[in-house]
Amino acid sequence: MKPAAQSRTPGELALIQAIRRQAARIPKPASLALGIGDDCALLRPRHGHEICVTTDFTLEGVHFRRDWHPPESVGHRCLARGLSDLAAMGARPLAVFLSIALPDRLPRGWFDRFLRGFLELAERYRAPLAGGDTAASPTGTISADIVAVGEVPAGTALLRSGARPGDSIYVTGSLGGAAAELGQLSHNPRRFSRIGQASPEHPHLYPEPRLAVAGRLRGIAHAAIDISDGLSTDLTHLCQESGVAAVLEEALLPMHPLVLEQRDALELALHGGEDYELLFTAGPRVRIPRAITGVPIRRIGKVRESRAGQPTLVLTTCQGRSLPIPAAGWQHFARGR
Amino acid sequence: MKPAAQSRTPGELALIQAIRRQAARIPKPASLALGIGDDCALLRPRHGHEICVTTDFTLEGVHFRRDWHPPESVGHRCLARGLSDLAAMGARPLAVFLSIALPDRLPRGWFDRFLRGFLELAERYRAPLAGGDTAASPTGTISADIVAVGEVPAGTALLRSGARPGDSIYVTGSLGGAAAELGQLSHNPRRFSRIGQASPEHPHLYPEPRLAVAGRLRGIAHAAIDISDGLSTDLTHLCQESGVAAVLEEALLPMHPLVLEQRDALELALHGGEDYELLFTAGPRVRIPRAITGVPIRRIGKVRESRAGQPTLVLTTCQGRSLPIPAAGWQHFARGR
Repeated sequence: MKPAAQSRTPGELALIQAIRRQAARIPKPASLALGIGDDCALLRPRHGHEICVTTDFTLEGVHFRRDWHPPESVGHRCLARGLSDLAAMGARPLAVFLSIALPDRLPRGWFDRFLRGFLELAERYRAPLAGGDTAASPTGTISADIVAVGEVPAGTALLRSGARPGDSIYVTGSLGGAAAELGQLSHNPRRFSRIGQASPEHPHLYPEPRLAVAGRLRGIAHAAIDISDGLSTDLTHLCQESGVAAVLEEALLPMHPLVLEQRDALELALHGGEDYELLFTAGPRVRIPRAITGVPIRRIGKVRESRAGQPTLVLTTCQGRSLPIPAAGWQHFARGR
Repeated sequence: MKPAAQSRTPGELALIQAIRRQAARIPKPASLALGIGDDCALLRPRHGHEICVTTDFTLEGVHFRRDWHPPESVGHRCLARGLSDLAAMGARPLAVFLSIALPDRLPRGWFDRFLRGFLELAERYRAPLAGGDTAASPTGTISADIVAVGEVPAGTALLRSGARPGDSIYVTGSLGGAAAELGQLSHNPRRFSRIGQASPEHPHLYPEPRLAVAGRLRGIAHAAIDISDGLSTDLTHLCQESGVAAVLEEALLPMHPLVLEQRDALELALHGGEDYELLFTAGPRVRIPRAITGVPIRRIGKVRESRAGQPTLVLTTCQGRSLPIPAAGWQHFARGR
């Protein structure tokens, strides 16, 4: 019941053509033997490498709103989630895939802008769009699923499970910016409707997957995860998978400029989701540079042993108090909020 | 905006747990270094192999109807599409991934049965479920996207583009069965509501990806494609990618028992979609066995040179007439049919 080629609407056929044509703009690396057009794409990983695969659903009304997000931002964000997962493994992208269901009546310009945002990010990280699927959305809403495939030298992938008591905890970039900008967006979406270019000034609309940092952490970091659900939630994940606990120091948290003026700055930094920064641990004696490829790296806390009855995550405040921190990443506007 | 772990509903958390638990039933092959639970899955392809990747969207109302299809069939079919794509490349599965958006109010039993159908097929072909994504569907309809990843010895993948004039055209199994059963299903869905087990008697509900045949065709077939959109459409694709034309012989077409009694048997065999049989070509002097691993293989026509102004596809009828055949795979019940 996959719509047969001949029964696709002219709009769908034009869509597929547009995707093939636009995707061809990204130079085909040697690792992509065969792209769009056959039953499968064919990838050629390097000898001695393992393959990383991740998929991420992006649903209108859950992950974005058409009346809030510029289409370029939707395209960028749906791919950034997958590339950020590759970064969290220390991997290099080989190819990406896009399955998308579009309503019949969607203005064609929307998809063109979506694809532009998607492909600009893909091109920047040499991640060719190698396939996917299209369908007519029966519900009138847009849904997209992306697949990111990468490679990493065998045995060197950064896992969530490698943190050890005594490790220092580090984070790239800054915290809370995406949540702060989402707050602005929800109050005045019009102000953001024409922002079609990726820029670090727009951490919610255009989060930057930390692929440039990721490769440099292999062999240094003991464990890594990307901050998609919020620092508190993702650090808790990392601790649980590693069987450890963690102490964060409030004074060390690198706040995004957008949160600095907010009253709930600390909450945004701890629980705001979608910063897509890398959170990692490394041994206490390892020298971690203050920046990698221009991205600041900050030590924000320490791993310690997990003890029954003790909280997994504790924050030492600027006043020297210890606060247990729940894993409280938030769900932004799912379910009609 | 990926829902944070702590903000997922109890139903969603239970869902993820169910998936992890059920997926763990399939023994982890050596080629799967890391499954569900980290930022990515990690696969270890064998040295000298290329990676095949395909994705397929399955949307309620487009690819299945909840009031027609038993949930096991939906799970089976959404995975069968991807495994069939791997078969069409001559590949062996390494892992599969499932992204699924479910309505809040879906009875839990539906998903359990869906997953059972999905995993039974996955287990049969040693394709571990290694990851994916979940989301709450904001529209009340189910959508699923699957990814199938396979491996094939480098340089041996079966492409659509390798057919040469003079090749014989072959097909596995039989034709039209899926379309015929879909006709029955649409007239009397109740009769099919409890058919929860894969069986060749149900070619629409439980199509069989031809992975067992696929590996044996490498080095023999010049070109291959799977019949998802119908023989006419998929053979046209293969011809276009190879720059050739084709003649089919009506008398040679292997009809599925379900279509034999139908008046439009020939139409179902030519244009009925979703048989998921393999269509391939091989040199005229190559001896192709009449069956591979119990699956019948039939010669159904010949590849010839493509000539400007001539139809790509011609059928020689039982009466010896030549009929041009349009690529007319059909769209079953999309758009509210």
